[in-house]
Amino acid sequence: MSKSQAYIDANQQKFLDELFELLRIPSVSTDSTKKGEIQKAANFLLDQLKSLNLNKVELFETPGNPIVYGEHCPHADKPTVLIYGHYDVQPSDPDDLWDTPAFEPTIKDGNIYARGASDDKGQAYTHVKALESFVQSGEEIPVNVKIILEGEEEIGSPNLVPFINQHKDMLTCDMVLISDTAMFGKDQPSITYGLRGLAYMEVEVVGPNRDLHSGVYGGAVENPLNVLCEMIAKMKDEDGVIQIPGFYDKVIPLTDADREASAALPFDEEAYKKSLDIDDVHGEKGYTTLERASARPTLDVNGIWGGYTGEGAKTVLPSKANAKISMRLVPDQDPKEIAKLFTEYFHAIAPDTVKVKVTEHHGGHASITNLDFYGLKAAAKAFEDVFEKDVLFSREGGSIPIVADFKKILGVESILMGFGLTSDAIHSPNEKFSIQDFHRGIKTSARFFELLPDFVEK
Amino acid sequence: MSKSQAYIDANQQKFLDELFELLRIPSVSTDSTKKGEIQKAANFLLDQLKSLNLNKVELFETPGNPIVYGEHCPHADKPTVLIYGHYDVQPSDPDDLWDTPAFEPTIKDGNIYARGASDDKGQAYTHVKALESFVQSGEEIPVNVKIILEGEEEIGSPNLVPFINQHKDMLTCDMVLISDTAMFGKDQPSITYGLRGLAYMEVEVVGPNRDLHSGVYGGAVENPLNVLCEMIAKMKDEDGVIQIPGFYDKVIPLTDADREASAALPFDEEAYKKSLDIDDVHGEKGYTTLERASARPTLDVNGIWGGYTGEGAKTVLPSKANAKISMRLVPDQDPKEIAKLFTEYFHAIAPDTVKVKVTEHHGGHASITNLDFYGLKAAAKAFEDVFEKDVLFSREGGSIPIVADFKKILGVESILMGFGLTSDAIHSPNEKFSIQDFHRGIKTSARFFELLPDFVEK
Repeated sequence: MSKSQAYIDANQQKFLDELFELLRIPSVSTDSTKKGEIQKAANFLLDQLKSLNLNKVELFETPGNPIVYGEHCPHADKPTVLIYGHYDVQPSDPDDLWDTPAFEPTIKDGNIYARGASDDKGQAYTHVKALESFVQSGEEIPVNVKIILEGEEEIGSPNLVPFINQHKDMLTCDMVLISDTAMFGKDQPSITYGLRGLAYMEVEVVGPNRDLHSGVYGGAVENPLNVLCEMIAKMKDEDGVIQIPGFYDKVIPLTDADREASAALPFDEEAYKKSLDIDDVHGEKGYTTLERASARPTLDVNGIWGGYTGEGAKTVLPSKANAKISMRLVPDQDPKEIAKLFTEYFHAIAPDTVKVKVTEHHGGHASITNLDFYGLKAAAKAFEDVFEKDVLFSREGGSIPIVADFKKILGVESILMGFGLTSDAIHSPNEKFSIQDFHRGIKTSARFFELLPDFVEK
Repeated sequence: MSKSQAYIDANQQKFLDELFELLRIPSVSTDSTKKGEIQKAANFLLDQLKSLNLNKVELFETPGNPIVYGEHCPHADKPTVLIYGHYDVQPSDPDDLWDTPAFEPTIKDGNIYARGASDDKGQAYTHVKALESFVQSGEEIPVNVKIILEGEEEIGSPNLVPFINQHKDMLTCDMVLISDTAMFGKDQPSITYGLRGLAYMEVEVVGPNRDLHSGVYGGAVENPLNVLCEMIAKMKDEDGVIQIPGFYDKVIPLTDADREASAALPFDEEAYKKSLDIDDVHGEKGYTTLERASARPTLDVNGIWGGYTGEGAKTVLPSKANAKISMRLVPDQDPKEIAKLFTEYFHAIAPDTVKVKVTEHHGGHASITNLDFYGLKAAAKAFEDVFEKDVLFSREGGSIPIVADFKKILGVESILMGFGLTSDAIHSPNEKFSIQDFHRGIKTSARFFELLPDFVEK
């Protein structure tokens, strides 16, 4: 065993204590009142990088949240890995559904329960500790490394792409390494080679200019809540096919090979349904659950509100209705174009009796990584050395829009070395991350750096 | 002019000051934290009645909010009028849409702005002051009177019907007098002879057992928000016809006479649309706006909520979705039966992928008063004496379920002597009541008591 791997084994408790410190900071980027916490999380990571004696460590301010950056590139003949992660987290609400406080990490059954444990503080931190394992055990970091830790991933990274464009030379690399995805299952390492994109919309339907009494006006004046529901119902047909004209025009159809690869993945639909307590799955006709969840586009209402939602009954015909609606995209759908098609359709299906408004939140492109890339192969071997199990290659349903951006701006592939589990409840109450996988994650990252030079194509 | 009418003219400011005191009490019955305020409003009215030297004044406790009761029946040969009103009010939310605080009555342009100004504190109070005008001016109240002021109208009067049943003998009367409706228009007195009933439901659609990441699960797991919208969309067809099987079975169709009476009412649809800032009206095909708003049953979503509704974007596939849905009913629909039909339909259209729960809030029967009733004729004459204008007879869209209950239990008709306006924004922000109509209301009530004995059918 290398000195670095031994160091990781010896420092498990220290790593955990440090991660807990980071998890206690409620760095929620969707909440504009949390700016101070964002700063605190950024400074914590900045101090961590500074302790590693890298060539360069710097906090880059942006119009939004700061980007923590470090680099150490002493090797002229070795590949350069750009590590990417994010220190911002999703909101914790509904807080009353958390068994333990979202920002007080708690260990239970071998898991760390906390907002951000898996997405993405816990996963991003594995790489920081992997670098430390070389530095503190007196070894040279075996490759050139650069690291970006941003604070706006959960709001669509509005300032990251401008930053990358602006510092294109500084960020030159051979590949990007990201741990922000899930393994295929417990003890089943996997590498995600495909991600979905995202278009996220907010809609408002306005009827009368004020809330009305539903007895006096009901039946004669259009109710924006009923209208919004009817409009949302028109978004899909009975086969789950999205009805927005042009929505599927640029979708690359699944090949036979894609479908065979997906079918080969171990997946227990009964266990899946049981874990969610649902009687049946549901989705686009003609596709399997795995295909629906990773390789086909979707449309989901993420939130809806309007009228009286308090205790008891209020007989109101409300003035307006609102919803947040997002679409997961697949190659080659363009998020801007989809947002435009959605907006046009939403206006087209609105009755004359209401006024509608559509606004666009962040979006991102879908991506697929070439399976022949040497970086992927080194990552697979690192996983296999640490987990002692063959790696699976899969496509995943979530979005890391930055992957498409790295490809476009820096011209490199991303390696999605996920250590999470789909059961981690990211974005939900009781988010968790396995302590064992946090530890194995650090070891896999360090092992990847050790192995990578030998995998470079001559 | 009688001494009582002169007393009313002389005490306008005093009456207004007292009403303001009552309006300042936030006696919101839908909010269980407001029990103290309910008690305060009841005590205020109890003290008012006590000051009138009636034969009997009593506060009756119920399992819910107390009922204020008074009676004065010295005349063996004169009719007995049971006055009914309510001192509880709707919630004030959304508070940020009020121009002045909901519970700090404010005068502007001749109107009193406050929650409850029109519905129903201001209107109910006219009768208390009409009685005072006889007592304090040294006249005998010209008829026998009984008065019930309850505190649970806005939550469906759950304890009133048991109270009436229990005190059937005490409450014997020849008619009920209620001011809780609107006049047909400014300076256009009208008597409502028909009211719609109500069935008010709350629904919950549950999908997965926890909030999920919409990227990881979206497309493969049914989204309860989408489902709820689709189910609500199935409640009506494109012609506005409610799709619940059996819903219209007991509806008494409009007669030619009904439709002619409705068509004869002065109604300016352009002005109606303009006042609501809507481009078009909407409702059941084949009916006019007035018919839709008063004589046909409806189905409206009164509130909907679920998922992420905060700032920004959260990519959640929520575990559940909720809505409040109410139906206005017409003779002879039965609210219990309609609630049952709704529940059955809601379960029937729910896909296998979700679980649904339906609960019933308060309901009430629709009602129609016989136009030949002598009480109605006396009320019309009282209006005409005070307003110097012919009275219109109309049906109204709102519900006062107690009207059907009075008919059923006490065997009497109700006279709906409304002094409000449809533009009073009851149940909405900036509820108001005209000072002039508050004053004319007191005079009309007193005049009615003066006239009634002469209208009794010999």
